[in-house]
Amino acid sequence: MSAIGAAGATATNRRWTLARIPAGAPRDDDFALDEAPAAPPGDGEVALATVYVSVDPYQRNWMAGGGNYGAAAVPGATVIGRAIGVVVASRAPGYAPGDCVVANTGWQTAPVAAATSVERIDRALGPLPAWLSVLGSTGLTAWVGMTDIGRPQTGETVVVSAAAGAVGSVAGQLARMAGARVVGVAGAPDKCARVVSELGFDACVSHRDPDLGAALARACPEGVDVYFDNTGGRVSDAVMRLIVRDARIALCGLVAEYGAGAHGHDFRPLLANQALVRGFSVRRNLHRMAEYRALAADRIRSGDLRHHEDIVDGFERVPEHFRALLDGRTIGKALVRIAAEPAPR
Amino acid sequence: MSAIGAAGATATNRRWTLARIPAGAPRDDDFALDEAPAAPPGDGEVALATVYVSVDPYQRNWMAGGGNYGAAAVPGATVIGRAIGVVVASRAPGYAPGDCVVANTGWQTAPVAAATSVERIDRALGPLPAWLSVLGSTGLTAWVGMTDIGRPQTGETVVVSAAAGAVGSVAGQLARMAGARVVGVAGAPDKCARVVSELGFDACVSHRDPDLGAALARACPEGVDVYFDNTGGRVSDAVMRLIVRDARIALCGLVAEYGAGAHGHDFRPLLANQALVRGFSVRRNLHRMAEYRALAADRIRSGDLRHHEDIVDGFERVPEHFRALLDGRTIGKALVRIAAEPAPR
Repeated sequence: MSAIGAAGATATNRRWTLARIPAGAPRDDDFALDEAPAAPPGDGEVALATVYVSVDPYQRNWMAGGGNYGAAAVPGATVIGRAIGVVVASRAPGYAPGDCVVANTGWQTAPVAAATSVERIDRALGPLPAWLSVLGSTGLTAWVGMTDIGRPQTGETVVVSAAAGAVGSVAGQLARMAGARVVGVAGAPDKCARVVSELGFDACVSHRDPDLGAALARACPEGVDVYFDNTGGRVSDAVMRLIVRDARIALCGLVAEYGAGAHGHDFRPLLANQALVRGFSVRRNLHRMAEYRALAADRIRSGDLRHHEDIVDGFERVPEHFRALLDGRTIGKALVRIAAEPAPR
Repeated sequence: MSAIGAAGATATNRRWTLARIPAGAPRDDDFALDEAPAAPPGDGEVALATVYVSVDPYQRNWMAGGGNYGAAAVPGATVIGRAIGVVVASRAPGYAPGDCVVANTGWQTAPVAAATSVERIDRALGPLPAWLSVLGSTGLTAWVGMTDIGRPQTGETVVVSAAAGAVGSVAGQLARMAGARVVGVAGAPDKCARVVSELGFDACVSHRDPDLGAALARACPEGVDVYFDNTGGRVSDAVMRLIVRDARIALCGLVAEYGAGAHGHDFRPLLANQALVRGFSVRRNLHRMAEYRALAADRIRSGDLRHHEDIVDGFERVPEHFRALLDGRTIGKALVRIAAEPAPR
């Protein structure tokens, strides 16, 4: 792990690229490490030294050709994603070396970005990793889905899949703040226990339970009013059997289905219960970040909103941590630290 | 076929009951004809002589235990449904012999109904059969789904399944009035042709086309903004592959799936397009009938809204016509006339 100054001085940009499109669960040899001289910033651009790289389920969807993420997932492409970097050189007004920013620069160490595409970090609002989690787009994702689609009411039952993840953990806490009973679905029993003890969910069911349907039914004796779905697959099958009249399903992700064959979802409970399913995308809601971030910072200060980042060190470990994320072996927001944080100024 | 006076005088009530729960497509011996003396009206009730009996896809859903239609579908139960009857005896203020009403009395010839459960017919607004189709709950169903969920805009593409049916034919015409391009899906080529020539749809594709997906794609070169779904099944699979950003799917019926195994629907197009699926039920919207009916009567007079009823004669033919409906052999609203219409007063 190199210090920021050194990273800026090496003038080498390392990138993780797609070696090929993964078939099923990604393998190490689906990725290739590329090195090239770092480019100088052009007019209106900043050169960055990356500090944190984000690994996220949607990157798997991008690799599968799903969604619409701008750059195409072709062999040789830099893996897309958000990152935190420090400006090492600037040809953009208002940005100076030492500024910390969130950038859409993906898995690379010394990228160049248009200043209009980065977001300045105010470290007084929260530590750097939080800007890629609860103060960043995963938190915003949870808020958009709950605010626009889930709309939980006092006393309603809300189920959140991937409840220990970056989005699910915030989604469930937002529902709890709205007065709902919140039931998570997660993997390992210890993750489930932490979802209850640390995040304040009312219950958390393991999707490894051989009778997931019965376990969920016990946890949701009055049925399910809102389902915040990050996974799809058989978890969704079990939840949809429990929905009640006027249920709302916020379709945030289908990580269990990315790169797999189509999973068939039964529409009959939707018809019988006059229920709603709606997909959404945080990328169309980035203009609401300031509103959400102010609310989130306030709730973090009051202790209502907790967050956790699962951080490993070393750029060479990015694919490994991405695979751990997809396997459900991380908790909270998964990040890779590739340089020491600069001291706050 | 007996005249009204005679039907009232026979004092015999004939009922089609469920002999057993149909497995797959209903068969004649799934139904049993029952005869018993007609009951006199109790306090607040009217005795009716049925003129028209309605056969509808939702009755198959009821037989499969789907939805929530009040009476349970058990052997011996009278098949539920709407009907038009003439009052032959009344113990309810405001109702007198000769009044025509819409009633939820199902498949029977001489029922008794609470006056609070029937709706008086104003024959000046339209002929009796229309009160079970375009001026009745199938028209209201189309309007609720298009108004609340579909919300077609000028220039958008709207697909309607079971386009030649009672609900679909109205749904498509409402979308066309809103300025949308309207594409129907129906069965036989002659039905498809009539959907275009008589109902004014821009195109109509046969679901029997061996390459339904390609035929639909040709008919919807700019994709699908709104899907009014009456059928589910493989028609929905083909339509959902064509949806575009912010598409709305009004889930009205799943007739291709009633009594069959679950059909799996792919959620990935919903996520990729931030699209919405919402089930709805006309039974929760009956309080909006007057608003809809005024609009529909106006549009029928102006020639914008056309309707057709597919009528056979004879109470003994009710199950047969119901089977024809489910087989796609009817066009427009399927009704059985079991007595001559009374002369307008």
